Amino acid sequence: MVGAEDVEGLKALKKVQEEGIADVILIGSSQSRKEAEKIGLRFEFIEASDSEEAAYIGAKVVGEDRAHVLMKGLVKTSTLLKAVLDPSYGLRKGRLLSHVAVIESPILNRLLLLSDGGMVIRPTLEQKVGIIENAVTVARKLGIEEPKVACIAAVEVVNPDMPETLEAAALAQMNRRGQIKGCVVDGPLGLDNALSEFAAAVKRVEGKVAGNADVLVVPDIHSGNFLGKSVVYLAGGKIAGVVVGASAPVVIVSRADTAESKLYSIALGIALS
Amino acid sequence: MVGAEDVEGLKALKKVQEEGIADVILIGSSQSRKEAEKIGLRFEFIEASDSEEAAYIGAKVVGEDRAHVLMKGLVKTSTLLKAVLDPSYGLRKGRLLSHVAVIESPILNRLLLLSDGGMVIRPTLEQKVGIIENAVTVARKLGIEEPKVACIAAVEVVNPDMPETLEAAALAQMNRRGQIKGCVVDGPLGLDNALSEFAAAVKRVEGKVAGNADVLVVPDIHSGNFLGKSVVYLAGGKIAGVVVGASAPVVIVSRADTAESKLYSIALGIALS
Repeated sequence: MVGAEDVEGLKALKKVQEEGIADVILIGSSQSRKEAEKIGLRFEFIEASDSEEAAYIGAKVVGEDRAHVLMKGLVKTSTLLKAVLDPSYGLRKGRLLSHVAVIESPILNRLLLLSDGGMVIRPTLEQKVGIIENAVTVARKLGIEEPKVACIAAVEVVNPDMPETLEAAALAQMNRRGQIKGCVVDGPLGLDNALSEFAAAVKRVEGKVAGNADVLVVPDIHSGNFLGKSVVYLAGGKIAGVVVGASAPVVIVSRADTAESKLYSIALGIALS
Repeated sequence: MVGAEDVEGLKALKKVQEEGIADVILIGSSQSRKEAEKIGLRFEFIEASDSEEAAYIGAKVVGEDRAHVLMKGLVKTSTLLKAVLDPSYGLRKGRLLSHVAVIESPILNRLLLLSDGGMVIRPTLEQKVGIIENAVTVARKLGIEEPKVACIAAVEVVNPDMPETLEAAALAQMNRRGQIKGCVVDGPLGLDNALSEFAAAVKRVEGKVAGNADVLVVPDIHSGNFLGKSVVYLAGGKIAGVVVGASAPVVIVSRADTAESKLYSIALGIALS
């Protein structure tokens, strides 16, 4: 964890340790060390004079394979990502960095992946390909062999007034042409006919993805962000999130996340590492 | 109901009639009349030779105050709205037409309004003012005297890379300057800190709206549409929707809506008429 001054982050790591799924390296000021000792966390400690240095040490430690997940503590996301993208540490693999959320709704019998509601603001078509590839990598690590990817929009028909629907259709076709591999992509689909076989049947939307999507790809960060947060704040479900595309998963939890949600995100990072 | 050939629509009207909250006028082909009689619906009937004529008759009937809610049956939304916007029938009041959804989440103790996830594709700042005004009218009719309006975005800070956050901030300021009246507007807010006092406190977002929003105003149709549908397909909650801004509410239900949801939308239209 880069920025060990994050008290909530320390608590989340304590829970992770109690689950027995990770060893902890803290990077931060000498004061933060005492805080971590106080709550009974076991850890290796690396002192850093400021958050920028902490971020670079974090990237170095992961680049040298001494750690396998990079976690944001009390440090700005931009500072952490700058270190991740710095070529001298070797975390950058030439792939797009994107945010993948794993969501659990109380009324769905499977986990869903959602991207990108946390990283790429308004992806181009090319970036959407990268978003799909990253999400597919995550889905496979979670045991979904051939993920069904729905590029969702407000409607399930191509509407020239909604460029999002054209891009969704293009992504589906790129998948048929072998330009996006290892998954089945369809779109545009509405959220209803992506998730519900009934809704897909009523609207006569056919194919493998309709009603059975594993991955939801959204047009922009706002729509994805609302959808992810709706799982927690409207559905009472669960969400975990991680930034993928670098050589190691980057866990960026929000201050407002519950301790439970932070634990899930760290666990997801570990599962992907 | 314009386009009485809509069998699911007829069933929904039957439920409405059983609730004793409306009288029914059907506009459509002579065959549709028999269908309606078969299910035991009581109704006044006006024959129309095609869906365009049906739409114009519907607008006329509402314009003459013989009906108080216009409902879409088996007719294209565009055909129905063309008649609503035709100046010769007097339904147009010079206000923006926008879609307002009322959502009930299983984990929230109040109804939420959401706009616009169904009508205005990518509203300008000016159109967002109209969207807020329409939503406030609906909120007041539902008994919320001074609605708290949250202009939501992926983040609760103004980010120059996200014009949606600038517009949200501008709308909040326009409200303070008296350019948007009868409500309290704040933004940008995340969905989390709009709905949860805990999330607002953690992120130190203050004000009347944070944690207690009555109305969620979204940047575009996709983000609003996902959020509305998430209530049904991820949260197992309820949604009703209506198009407002004309002299009478226009109920546009989707084929894939459940019978229950259709009933709620018609009831909402009646409550607003």
